[in-house]
Amino acid sequence: MADTYTSHFGINNIPYGIASSTKRPQPQAVTRIGDDVIFLAELAPSTTGGADLQSLFLQPTLNAFAAQPPELQAEVRAKIQETYNAGKHTSFSEPLSAVTLHLPVSIGDFTDYSASANHVLNAGEAIQGVRNFPPAFHKYPVGYAGRSSSISISGTGITRPLGQFVDYSSPAKDIIFGASRALDYELEVGAIIGQPVEPGTILHASDADKHIFGLVLVNDWSARDIQGLEMNPLGPFNGKNFGTSITPWIITLQALKAYEVPAPERMNPVADFMNDNKPVNYDIRLSGAIARNGTKTTTCTVGFETMYWTFRHMLAHHTIGGCGLRTGDLVASGTVSGEMKHEHGCLLELTKNGKEPSKLSDGAELRYLADGDEVTYEGVVGDGSKGVGFGACVGVVRPAREIVTRGMEGGM
Amino acid sequence: MADTYTSHFGINNIPYGIASSTKRPQPQAVTRIGDDVIFLAELAPSTTGGADLQSLFLQPTLNAFAAQPPELQAEVRAKIQETYNAGKHTSFSEPLSAVTLHLPVSIGDFTDYSASANHVLNAGEAIQGVRNFPPAFHKYPVGYAGRSSSISISGTGITRPLGQFVDYSSPAKDIIFGASRALDYELEVGAIIGQPVEPGTILHASDADKHIFGLVLVNDWSARDIQGLEMNPLGPFNGKNFGTSITPWIITLQALKAYEVPAPERMNPVADFMNDNKPVNYDIRLSGAIARNGTKTTTCTVGFETMYWTFRHMLAHHTIGGCGLRTGDLVASGTVSGEMKHEHGCLLELTKNGKEPSKLSDGAELRYLADGDEVTYEGVVGDGSKGVGFGACVGVVRPAREIVTRGMEGGM
Repeated sequence: MADTYTSHFGINNIPYGIASSTKRPQPQAVTRIGDDVIFLAELAPSTTGGADLQSLFLQPTLNAFAAQPPELQAEVRAKIQETYNAGKHTSFSEPLSAVTLHLPVSIGDFTDYSASANHVLNAGEAIQGVRNFPPAFHKYPVGYAGRSSSISISGTGITRPLGQFVDYSSPAKDIIFGASRALDYELEVGAIIGQPVEPGTILHASDADKHIFGLVLVNDWSARDIQGLEMNPLGPFNGKNFGTSITPWIITLQALKAYEVPAPERMNPVADFMNDNKPVNYDIRLSGAIARNGTKTTTCTVGFETMYWTFRHMLAHHTIGGCGLRTGDLVASGTVSGEMKHEHGCLLELTKNGKEPSKLSDGAELRYLADGDEVTYEGVVGDGSKGVGFGACVGVVRPAREIVTRGMEGGM
Repeated sequence: MADTYTSHFGINNIPYGIASSTKRPQPQAVTRIGDDVIFLAELAPSTTGGADLQSLFLQPTLNAFAAQPPELQAEVRAKIQETYNAGKHTSFSEPLSAVTLHLPVSIGDFTDYSASANHVLNAGEAIQGVRNFPPAFHKYPVGYAGRSSSISISGTGITRPLGQFVDYSSPAKDIIFGASRALDYELEVGAIIGQPVEPGTILHASDADKHIFGLVLVNDWSARDIQGLEMNPLGPFNGKNFGTSITPWIITLQALKAYEVPAPERMNPVADFMNDNKPVNYDIRLSGAIARNGTKTTTCTVGFETMYWTFRHMLAHHTIGGCGLRTGDLVASGTVSGEMKHEHGCLLELTKNGKEPSKLSDGAELRYLADGDEVTYEGVVGDGSKGVGFGACVGVVRPAREIVTRGMEGGM
């Protein structure tokens, strides 16, 4: 896996995760360089913070470390790099193949935004045939609360949800109950909150970076038919809450800082607290692929620099009403999409809600996800030569559960 | 407080909460009979479960007890009643005035439904001038995810949120930033999940009670102007996420079982898993009042039996897509409203979004909440003679935070 080493997890990355192994059965904090997974509690005693840092790295989530001051995090980062370069890491590392990865943080609340102008326009066109913005879009990113308990790491299977939706093939457009026929992915990037934002803080967008520990890739699996019926008026619920996947490695803002790129120009003036003089995104090349029947097809390649609203804007808007953010909270961007068809980050956009099927590389028709489809979402910083990337967020679609009715079974 | 004793916290109630005191500084599990707060860890050794139960009651939340089998919970309930009746509780109880109450459970996810047919119709009329149901209403309760981190217990002040909204008084209907001018309450009832529903369970509505530990009153504070701008298309966000209040005492389903009342008849057929042959609500008399300038005005009295969708329906719908429910999760009903004006559970309905002001008892005009307003929400089972009630959910509106702009201050 030399390729993964050079393009995603080189010495410039130093991501954080939670792992266990046969030798180290308690899930605890780790980093990764190439395919070496380094157990941080064992590295800690030689660092400032010493014993405190060691007990913090022995915790089963990264929350306590994520909440530390950036200066301490920077020191740990430098120490890891120094130790690895000197070849002194071997006694407290194990190969990637020997460890099990776990959800890296305890996520108290999960917020999902719709921060891409292109996604908003493309999705509107796919559903309603018109390209327009919701009333608030030019003032702030529109968002909703997602389901924390359904978040799992890459590799966890996603069972096709059951639910109620309109059967548009029936003459009367009946509402029916069954397995979703319009299962989709949404390729997103998410921020993990580091230092909390206390409730009632007035956070200026320019100051928001200090509350972001790092970023992960997010696949916000969506059942478009279930979602379509339920959205009016309270937004997405069962169409989304059955499963959300994230990458196991948190890529820190410290690693990403060198790869800032300007966000698009504001189309309209914004409120003072949202007015970041120099809004930035990160130079991340994102790609999504579907493997079906042994053939892998790249369905999306898009850059994160396209996002209209940045994470700084998202955090400022989130907290302006008085809502706090806790360490470990996940704030996701919404689907990352560009203008071009190959840049569309979900099938709703790519196939116009299934009405205009796309093609897989073997010529087969693609409308929505089929059982057995494996969706892989990857992100590399720049061209990969910097050795900073997110790795892959992978999920396989499992068939829906069998429906057993009371009428037939007399109770279950 | 003999009145409170007889109508809310009599021997038939046995609610659960978390309290600390000077004598017992660690927050731990308690019950309440009249104004006696009984520390359960000290009662536990004489009960089945013994030491395990004792350590469970010493935890700072009720989650571990809520997750126990109903049989054990029933035994604890009987033991408390027996001990109290025999006058043997005095060594492990303190007066209510000596304790501090805390949030009773750790709430992983908070879901808020819109389960009242009357609320849906009244709110639609207030906002859009038409009384109609969203497309899905006859098939399932429409819901959304709320903000867990903003939930606090009765008595916590609510700061008027800042946010962006349409200034309808301006000729161009400008979007402005400022303190909400349309702060509202929503009087709701919420279910606290007991035994979890594992992800992927197909839960029939008829079987859902066994996952409900008990009920609380919920005030889902809402800023109608902020909410009005952001709702399209992803639902409520900053208009709600600044604060939600719940009562400190969880009234168990065991206490409420004797007071089941039939829910309204279904207007339309529902899916098999939603088809509860005998849907029930509880005989709870709810009332809401505003105290302003020393005058208290009851703004709402309504019965919980009016709810179209029951908690059983809410749990079945919530989980059908594969979403799990964890112990401690809060699933709220949405505003409880009747047909009549005095039964409207929020000011949006009562004052038609401020357009048709109501009157306070001193003759003053009521459109939305003013700074300093104290909102009290109470719930009594039946006529109060049964000694089962929820107590009060109280919140005072605090003024908005001051806005300091960068332009004026050169950074803050």
